Amino acid sequence: MKKILDHINYPKDLRLLKEEQLTKLAKELRAFIIDIVATKEGHLGASLGVVELTIALHYVFNTPEDLLVWDVGHQAYVHKLLTGRKAVFHTNRQLGGISGFPKREESVYDTFGVGHSSTSISAALGMAIASHLKGETNKQHIAVIGDASIASGMAFEGLNHAGVTNANLLVILNDNAIGIDPSVGALKQYLTNVKKGTQKQDNIFEALNFNYSGPIDGHDLPALISELERLKKLSGPKFLHVITTKGKGLKQAEENQVTYHAPGKFNALTGELHPKGNTVEPPKYQDVFGHTLVELAKQNKNIIGITPAMPTGSSLKYMMREFPDRAFDVGIAEQHAVTLAAGMATQGYIPFCNIYSTFLQRAYDQVIHDVALQKLPVIFCLDRAGLVGEDGATHHGVFDLSCLRCIPNLIIFAPRNEIELRNILYTAQLGLDAPIAIRYPRGRGNNLNWKQAFSPIPIGIGQCLKEGKDIAILSIGTICDNVIEAINLFDDDEGMAHYDMRFVKPIDKTLLHEICKNHKTIITIEDGSIKGGFGSEVLEFVSEQAYQNKVHILGIPDKFIEQGTVNNLQKIIGLDPESIANKIKEINESN
Amino acid sequence: MKKILDHINYPKDLRLLKEEQLTKLAKELRAFIIDIVATKEGHLGASLGVVELTIALHYVFNTPEDLLVWDVGHQAYVHKLLTGRKAVFHTNRQLGGISGFPKREESVYDTFGVGHSSTSISAALGMAIASHLKGETNKQHIAVIGDASIASGMAFEGLNHAGVTNANLLVILNDNAIGIDPSVGALKQYLTNVKKGTQKQDNIFEALNFNYSGPIDGHDLPALISELERLKKLSGPKFLHVITTKGKGLKQAEENQVTYHAPGKFNALTGELHPKGNTVEPPKYQDVFGHTLVELAKQNKNIIGITPAMPTGSSLKYMMREFPDRAFDVGIAEQHAVTLAAGMATQGYIPFCNIYSTFLQRAYDQVIHDVALQKLPVIFCLDRAGLVGEDGATHHGVFDLSCLRCIPNLIIFAPRNEIELRNILYTAQLGLDAPIAIRYPRGRGNNLNWKQAFSPIPIGIGQCLKEGKDIAILSIGTICDNVIEAINLFDDDEGMAHYDMRFVKPIDKTLLHEICKNHKTIITIEDGSIKGGFGSEVLEFVSEQAYQNKVHILGIPDKFIEQGTVNNLQKIIGLDPESIANKIKEINESN
Repeated sequence: MKKILDHINYPKDLRLLKEEQLTKLAKELRAFIIDIVATKEGHLGASLGVVELTIALHYVFNTPEDLLVWDVGHQAYVHKLLTGRKAVFHTNRQLGGISGFPKREESVYDTFGVGHSSTSISAALGMAIASHLKGETNKQHIAVIGDASIASGMAFEGLNHAGVTNANLLVILNDNAIGIDPSVGALKQYLTNVKKGTQKQDNIFEALNFNYSGPIDGHDLPALISELERLKKLSGPKFLHVITTKGKGLKQAEENQVTYHAPGKFNALTGELHPKGNTVEPPKYQDVFGHTLVELAKQNKNIIGITPAMPTGSSLKYMMREFPDRAFDVGIAEQHAVTLAAGMATQGYIPFCNIYSTFLQRAYDQVIHDVALQKLPVIFCLDRAGLVGEDGATHHGVFDLSCLRCIPNLIIFAPRNEIELRNILYTAQLGLDAPIAIRYPRGRGNNLNWKQAFSPIPIGIGQCLKEGKDIAILSIGTICDNVIEAINLFDDDEGMAHYDMRFVKPIDKTLLHEICKNHKTIITIEDGSIKGGFGSEVLEFVSEQAYQNKVHILGIPDKFIEQGTVNNLQKIIGLDPESIANKIKEINESN
Repeated sequence: MKKILDHINYPKDLRLLKEEQLTKLAKELRAFIIDIVATKEGHLGASLGVVELTIALHYVFNTPEDLLVWDVGHQAYVHKLLTGRKAVFHTNRQLGGISGFPKREESVYDTFGVGHSSTSISAALGMAIASHLKGETNKQHIAVIGDASIASGMAFEGLNHAGVTNANLLVILNDNAIGIDPSVGALKQYLTNVKKGTQKQDNIFEALNFNYSGPIDGHDLPALISELERLKKLSGPKFLHVITTKGKGLKQAEENQVTYHAPGKFNALTGELHPKGNTVEPPKYQDVFGHTLVELAKQNKNIIGITPAMPTGSSLKYMMREFPDRAFDVGIAEQHAVTLAAGMATQGYIPFCNIYSTFLQRAYDQVIHDVALQKLPVIFCLDRAGLVGEDGATHHGVFDLSCLRCIPNLIIFAPRNEIELRNILYTAQLGLDAPIAIRYPRGRGNNLNWKQAFSPIPIGIGQCLKEGKDIAILSIGTICDNVIEAINLFDDDEGMAHYDMRFVKPIDKTLLHEICKNHKTIITIEDGSIKGGFGSEVLEFVSEQAYQNKVHILGIPDKFIEQGTVNNLQKIIGLDPESIANKIKEINESN
């Protein structure tokens, strides 16, 4: 059967359709997305939920002249298909392919690069004010934001400013009651009451000076189109509340919204997930965290768990199930999460605050001002540190070591494997007199036998993993494995020593003295920026102590790293075992 | 006449008073504060506005068992006087004296250290949840927050979480319609309407599940006491809206609230500010920024000015007056300020986003994710960089170079004087293909003749200020002056070269090659953390290029620096001219 979608490459094609054809197009778009994501993987549920909304937006508004900003961007697949990227959609999230998020350099229709939450209102308001200054009074600026994202402080700041401007800003609340996990918080309750009709609709957003309309059914194309047509004619800040269902059109995705947020491979026809093989795999680092925290919380009643909107991704969900009173999902609110933890720490509790490395950037000031300055023993567990793979530049956790290292009082640790992660979690809750940041990667470790008896890790003490007298290789964290593999590539590895320094701060000075005295050449390796990170800490020591060693720093180069598998990305930037081995050879030969 | 205040050292003394004595006490407290701040300087208006509220809080609640958190802390002088610090209040903000802000190590009544805005709700909620877990069901937890601070995103995050807990949290909105400058934004308008009675009172905060009461007169002691007594008996999250007048009780302070926020010395009897002398002083750096921006904005219609709540402190007020359409005070909303600027930059505008160095920490993620990643040419002007003096540890801008240096695409510049600041502002608006951070200090420069014709500064090019063949001293920013003075202390300064590197990033590699080749020893000096900053950039270059130079890094040591005059603090940490000279000697002798 002939498909409408075959003829749609850009919004101008879409606008040639009759309104009654759009429902069929919506169906085709859903099928197209399901087909490709089923085999290529990606974010599914969010985009299925906004098929009608996306069609309506491009149908009614004059994109790309009218400027459309998608918050976070998980939901922008339909937008990508309708704006010139249908033919390359199968390369989504792959090395060299299109990004999983809107991205300015990819398309003029991607007006603002996104990935982190709650930026859309500020960005669209900036554009709207710009248009106003240019005298482009008919130009429209639209931010589409989910109910989880709008509850973040940054979104409130944008609304608070927009409400006192006369900017042509339309904020569309895509309310599906879920982010990656179900939404939380008082605003979410309020929105639920609005939907049920038990609360006045005009409360919060009209109080902030927005022209509010809704809630309307986000899967009802005629209703969407007529409401958008009406709003297009109004100037000033407008707010449209749209109710959608995440995963709409795929039964399993509607019923299991958390799982089908990014389901991995599945059967496009039945929607069933591919069955897991029988092979026993080593655990994900997040699960080592999640399960170990439950174990520890059973013994230590002072342990608290906190996540800003990532109970599933961080595996804090296990503690939330076992100890619902002591584990908190605070929503997309990293700033609040950190200072909440600080407040609890003042009362003698031991908060484990689990935040993805890239999202801790949102709470940088709170780590400094509320935690480290007061020397409160908050335990930061930074998941997704280092390269994260397909999520790309917006999500790599590569700045943490550099930006945290200058913070006084803060301990910084990176486990080289699951067992070290377990043991540092154990150590941290024994009682530290300072905060600690523990950074570990996305994905799986490689120890099946990871659940071993706890053993405390002395703070500030590194380890020699392999003796050798020429070159000393100092690694931090799980990149350790690549170093071991690199060393194994040599026929003669006698000259190479390998140290897992464990702590970036306080660095093990006794060990460093030994290393500097016994090795002419030092190579540092980290899964983080080469600017100001672990390698710089070693350099600063060598310089301060007036040693003469040559120091070579390997790490993430000073540029934004794109998407791809972690293995491929490591090859590109020279952090895979072969590249490391080549670098060692090169350094050896130049000595 | 006998004073009640003479007998009041702690809240327990206060609670022995009869309610009718409190009005007299309030009067005495105002006089006490005015007397001391008139000669010792400090923050005046905020504390005068909460005299009655502070008395009422300590009178009604059982502090320090009940936990009281002051947001920001400018307003906590009365609190300090009533909690054991009357006798040392004259040491306020001085080296070795009491802090200008609540501080945990100073008093058990200071439950949470503050300085940056909008942390109180999160911290108090953390404490309240802790008490709840301990079964301390009668314990009260109070956050006192101003109307400017509550409009910041972080405060919203705290409210949003608190509203779905049953924590004994009382949020008191101290609504005086002003922060340091008058409050802005839609929430402020809403609060104004509530006060005028033109808006329903129960809108926003009741929608967020708080038990709302008010607005009440914050200078009416009986009303305050009876309302607090009532609220004390209620469990769960409560919200009290209190209307106060900033500067209450000193006519000039009430009438000129911006000036009397921190008025400097004044006549305690008349309230008049001390007249300025006739001596012509060099300009404040903030004014070099403020006036130069107006000059540039006249020529370049694409220039935009943005400040998060610091029009006076940043001197953006000059542009706001001349070009009200193109200069924006967005309130205490650093995150929004940065992404708003990014949005404007996508439309071809040239936003100057002026944020104090210490507050940029609040927008760290936005600088990375919304600006640098998209290579949008936003111009960040970081005022109050380096040591700021009496505001102390919470306000020193000493982490900027370290945390910004790892951000790809970002240019980082520090002017050594007013003229360089002018010229880099001029250069930046000519059109860069990347964002730039320009950091400059609090206080005055030393060039009376600063308003010179513009001259562009080539990006990434440093300067030799003095030739010399032994030691090369590399400075960044205004600490340059101390180096010049240090060199002048030597009878024979022939061996010392001095370079102003200007750019931390991209650092001038051509110049560095020259320096490394021609000097055995390098000393780097910066008014920022020695961990990962300018010195590390130089070290990384030397290591990468395999030079053998000895590099010595001078800067802010890896600990939080307390309050004091900048001169005194520099002496303590070895950055004053004499200490620098001694260090040079020491290095010379060890060579």
